[in-house]
Amino acid sequence: MGEATAGDGGEVVTAAVLVIGDEILSGRTKDRNIGYIAEYLTALGIDLREARIVPDVVSEIAAAVNALRGRYTYVFTTGGIGPTHDDITADGIAEAFGVPVHHDPRAVEILKAYLGDRLNEARLRMARMPVGSELIENTVSKAPGWRIGNVYVMAGIPSVMHAMLDAIAPTLRTGTVIESRTVEGRGIKEGDVGGPLGDIQAAFPQVMIGSYPHFDGNQFTTSLVLRSRDTAALDAAEAQVRALVERLLAEVRP
Amino acid sequence: MGEATAGDGGEVVTAAVLVIGDEILSGRTKDRNIGYIAEYLTALGIDLREARIVPDVVSEIAAAVNALRGRYTYVFTTGGIGPTHDDITADGIAEAFGVPVHHDPRAVEILKAYLGDRLNEARLRMARMPVGSELIENTVSKAPGWRIGNVYVMAGIPSVMHAMLDAIAPTLRTGTVIESRTVEGRGIKEGDVGGPLGDIQAAFPQVMIGSYPHFDGNQFTTSLVLRSRDTAALDAAEAQVRALVERLLAEVRP
Repeated sequence: MGEATAGDGGEVVTAAVLVIGDEILSGRTKDRNIGYIAEYLTALGIDLREARIVPDVVSEIAAAVNALRGRYTYVFTTGGIGPTHDDITADGIAEAFGVPVHHDPRAVEILKAYLGDRLNEARLRMARMPVGSELIENTVSKAPGWRIGNVYVMAGIPSVMHAMLDAIAPTLRTGTVIESRTVEGRGIKEGDVGGPLGDIQAAFPQVMIGSYPHFDGNQFTTSLVLRSRDTAALDAAEAQVRALVERLLAEVRP
Repeated sequence: MGEATAGDGGEVVTAAVLVIGDEILSGRTKDRNIGYIAEYLTALGIDLREARIVPDVVSEIAAAVNALRGRYTYVFTTGGIGPTHDDITADGIAEAFGVPVHHDPRAVEILKAYLGDRLNEARLRMARMPVGSELIENTVSKAPGWRIGNVYVMAGIPSVMHAMLDAIAPTLRTGTVIESRTVEGRGIKEGDVGGPLGDIQAAFPQVMIGSYPHFDGNQFTTSLVLRSRDTAALDAAEAQVRALVERLLAEVRP
């Protein structure tokens, strides 16, 4: 959508997602968390600006966290906070912040109360986090996530991550929600709409106009998506895009 | 999988994926390309080490390409090479390499031959690429991808990306394929396997051992995945993991 800006002066709150896990990079597990968080943040008026997937390597996690946390309002991580040796997210994030890792006493209490006799050394790993972290409630399986600075550390298992995000959401600063309108250009090819659509984009810099082609095996559809925090500009741009689609369809019809 | 190394001295070829597109970051479109490329490269013996998703902003694309291309053997990008104004991948990658963008004459010929009268100014955008690029064949919809240096630029539409990856694959340097073994710990919880599994990992640094829990609503399963380029070490580690799972199951059974 070019380098159009979204602004009408409303507050812009930004975020990045950091997915941690060799299993995603090997292709064994397909990430579903980025898309979920993206939709969730968009609904809150928070702009997801970047996502990264890094392996289970402490220095890689630390470098990515430091690259992202200075740049965006919030960083959300998923993965690597379980009870096994390959769960090293705590170490990576502690390295990024230059603080030690400890067994958080509040987290230990939660695990004790929930697990009783089953709280062995491996499960105690789930209480490990950088000194200075605050807990994030896990209503699904109790072992908490945590926040340090503007970095929110969540589980990789989708159902647990969803619960943690629900716990975090009320505490987040949110921006003006970006409104979105979609004009479905059924039977219209991207190459036919492209020229005049670029002219409309140029006329409405405060609206982000995207073009997304599909082919269902029978017919081309080009979805034209307009997004803005400025409703009046969005209305005007949408009217022009609808008129353009009508004009193109009239040309296509015999 | 900790910071275990995968090596038995076999050649290690590395890669990064860069997904370009506001529609992925807004959550409107769910990325399926990273997982596909990850599996594809793993099968070729190429280690995917990192993935990033960036918006349709020239400077962001350029910065990510420059961060990745010096670090990994190959960089594969998807998205942003279509005919509309929001397709600016060519500009971002040209900026990264410090070269101008032109209409590649070979690409123009391909588009002319395929599109005839339909080759308008918007569709001509699909021939735009940095000077010095080589074409990547597109058997699906003709408009080619391109390579400059170690950066391979592919379409975002999955079917077209798949065809381009098939065209690229025979030209890639590949490494020793990482063998993978999975021991399914049905009825076993991660917290029970974690301690002894960490000991096995410590004993086999040349094997990457990962632990992936699932809950099907009825039973916990912990998949234990061993990966290595060293078959003998993999055999030995797998035997120990299988014995561990048997021992734990014997404890669970009444």
